[in-house]
Amino acid sequence: MRVGILGGGQLARMMAEAGGPMGLTFEFLDPSATACAGALGALHVGAWDDPDGLDHLAACDRVTCDFENVPAAVLADLAGRTRVYPPPAAFAGAQDRLVEKRLLEQLGIPIAPVAAVDGRPDLLAAVEQIGYPCVLKTRRLGYDGKGQAVLYSHEDLEPAWQTLGGQELILEGWIDFRHECALTAVRSGAGEIRYYPLSRTVHQRGVLRLAASMHQPPPALRQQAEVAVGALLDHLEYVGCLTLEFFATEDGLIANEYAPRPHNSAHWTIEGAVCSQFENHLRAVCGLPLGSTRRRGHSVMLNWLGELPDAAAFLRIPGLAWHDYHKQPRPGRKLGHATLTTDTLAELHAGVESVRPLLDPETASLLDRLAL
Amino acid sequence: MRVGILGGGQLARMMAEAGGPMGLTFEFLDPSATACAGALGALHVGAWDDPDGLDHLAACDRVTCDFENVPAAVLADLAGRTRVYPPPAAFAGAQDRLVEKRLLEQLGIPIAPVAAVDGRPDLLAAVEQIGYPCVLKTRRLGYDGKGQAVLYSHEDLEPAWQTLGGQELILEGWIDFRHECALTAVRSGAGEIRYYPLSRTVHQRGVLRLAASMHQPPPALRQQAEVAVGALLDHLEYVGCLTLEFFATEDGLIANEYAPRPHNSAHWTIEGAVCSQFENHLRAVCGLPLGSTRRRGHSVMLNWLGELPDAAAFLRIPGLAWHDYHKQPRPGRKLGHATLTTDTLAELHAGVESVRPLLDPETASLLDRLAL
Repeated sequence: MRVGILGGGQLARMMAEAGGPMGLTFEFLDPSATACAGALGALHVGAWDDPDGLDHLAACDRVTCDFENVPAAVLADLAGRTRVYPPPAAFAGAQDRLVEKRLLEQLGIPIAPVAAVDGRPDLLAAVEQIGYPCVLKTRRLGYDGKGQAVLYSHEDLEPAWQTLGGQELILEGWIDFRHECALTAVRSGAGEIRYYPLSRTVHQRGVLRLAASMHQPPPALRQQAEVAVGALLDHLEYVGCLTLEFFATEDGLIANEYAPRPHNSAHWTIEGAVCSQFENHLRAVCGLPLGSTRRRGHSVMLNWLGELPDAAAFLRIPGLAWHDYHKQPRPGRKLGHATLTTDTLAELHAGVESVRPLLDPETASLLDRLAL
Repeated sequence: MRVGILGGGQLARMMAEAGGPMGLTFEFLDPSATACAGALGALHVGAWDDPDGLDHLAACDRVTCDFENVPAAVLADLAGRTRVYPPPAAFAGAQDRLVEKRLLEQLGIPIAPVAAVDGRPDLLAAVEQIGYPCVLKTRRLGYDGKGQAVLYSHEDLEPAWQTLGGQELILEGWIDFRHECALTAVRSGAGEIRYYPLSRTVHQRGVLRLAASMHQPPPALRQQAEVAVGALLDHLEYVGCLTLEFFATEDGLIANEYAPRPHNSAHWTIEGAVCSQFENHLRAVCGLPLGSTRRRGHSVMLNWLGELPDAAAFLRIPGLAWHDYHKQPRPGRKLGHATLTTDTLAELHAGVESVRPLLDPETASLLDRLAL
């Protein structure tokens, strides 16, 4: 079976790493000639609506995405020519924060207070309604903390407007969270849903830095997350893996955003679950039976941003697996990750203490926020 | 780091699958334009002594093999131009059964009685010395049971000679074994050795069909195997993974043959060990710290020979991982494997009972010989 992927970044690359042993072959469409998945399949370089590239994808048995901002018209065109999973409708919410929030609200999933901001007068009204602190966000094309500004007081309004004004925005209430977490699940074409264990996540300046498999989440937390993700998957008649990110507060989970694709918070499933999110995404997309989402031991994942550290120092740590995305370094760019997976929690703690001195002090201090 | 591999078969393919995430890139030299590793690196099609192909490999940081019958002159040439691991000397024994047996003997490793057979008179003398049953084998280029004939009585002599005579042969005593097993270990350039758990193996008509991680081998068995493999690795000043195959008898282990490369009996380490034989081979070859060889749960591996069964039926079984080598089907050809890995023995037994009805009756009956 041949799978076409819109996007050729690290998510496409890890899909190809998981899918090759299952007998799948891959075609990628990406605007960049150096897209890192290219080494593992046929790379077609072109814009998202490049007719020749789309013809190549349309000739595949299945098409999926490693990127949620593919234009809706492209997805609709492909869906008329081959099987596209997740279904294109799932991307509407993922491409527009206001549509996303309204959908979550409609499904009864708790979210932060939110207001549309289409112009400067809306902003003042929204601040009045929501209060400080709050977060001004672009409705479209925001990721990794980009396109956001936190407003603590009236003084922050003008600078934020200067940066973000002139496009469709939303204003969201600030959530005073205890910690962040995310739930990844996979849904088959027949409607079967399997949930991974919750991931505890730690962001730094809006970018995911650390994630860990939660070994004993409070049952109510897990249940709330599964009910929310299940409702979303069923509503979207979803096929593939999806991740919903949450803030955990005193009053339970507040949903933040979802990603209709494999997600950074679940990279630890490659070593730390029976069947990884990448393999399960492809199993669902290709109509194969879903794999077990059960945890194997305990895992912590660290993202490498901007530059890859020397692997050798890390590879001395038992149970540490390396993932180099083969991307050119660029400040802040996700270049790879490492996952530490151990049989026992005691071994995980020991491994983390071996990792700590190899990290810069700021990242090292984030480890404590995983509360392992 | 760029790694050149002599051979582009499934072992090279699985090395590339393991090495890509470590940031390695690969070049392969193989006589076949359809060598299955080609999709994961740069494939140079040519004979083992193809000058252009060897120039490409010599330009790599390291060179290793997925095939032990590369001509010695080729290995020597490459070793003069870049770092070749395992060291070329390790291939001498792997290419000639008589050299191999004499080396094992010299290291004090128990082997079956053996005699060189260079002509018809030698054969009669050897049979006289060793007795029936015995096995006549070519000294060179035998694998997967090819180039062998079992002699049960004087009547078998002439047909065996008609088939195998005219080349250098050995005659070996028949070993009445309880079961077969194999030990894979990895040795670093600094001389550190790590042993995987013993693999229990089951052959059918000379070809490996099944292998399983042994969860509780008798300590004396494990110790004998580790002493033998350790002596061999140190003697060869070996770098990389090596597997030594044994017959387990009432009187302990009898060594059969070794392979200076990743080996089919340890494919289960991909899912069933912390660091797989493929990753550890590359770590050793590239001078990176060795990974843990510890077992993760319990594993059984099944080879797919001649044709790949329908994956979907197998993928329903929790913990079963699929490995399609992307090779063209041909009778008896190794086309892929599946590994069932579970946390507990009870789950392994349940999984095996789910696998059994999906197999042809002959293969299904072999499962019992694993004595799980």
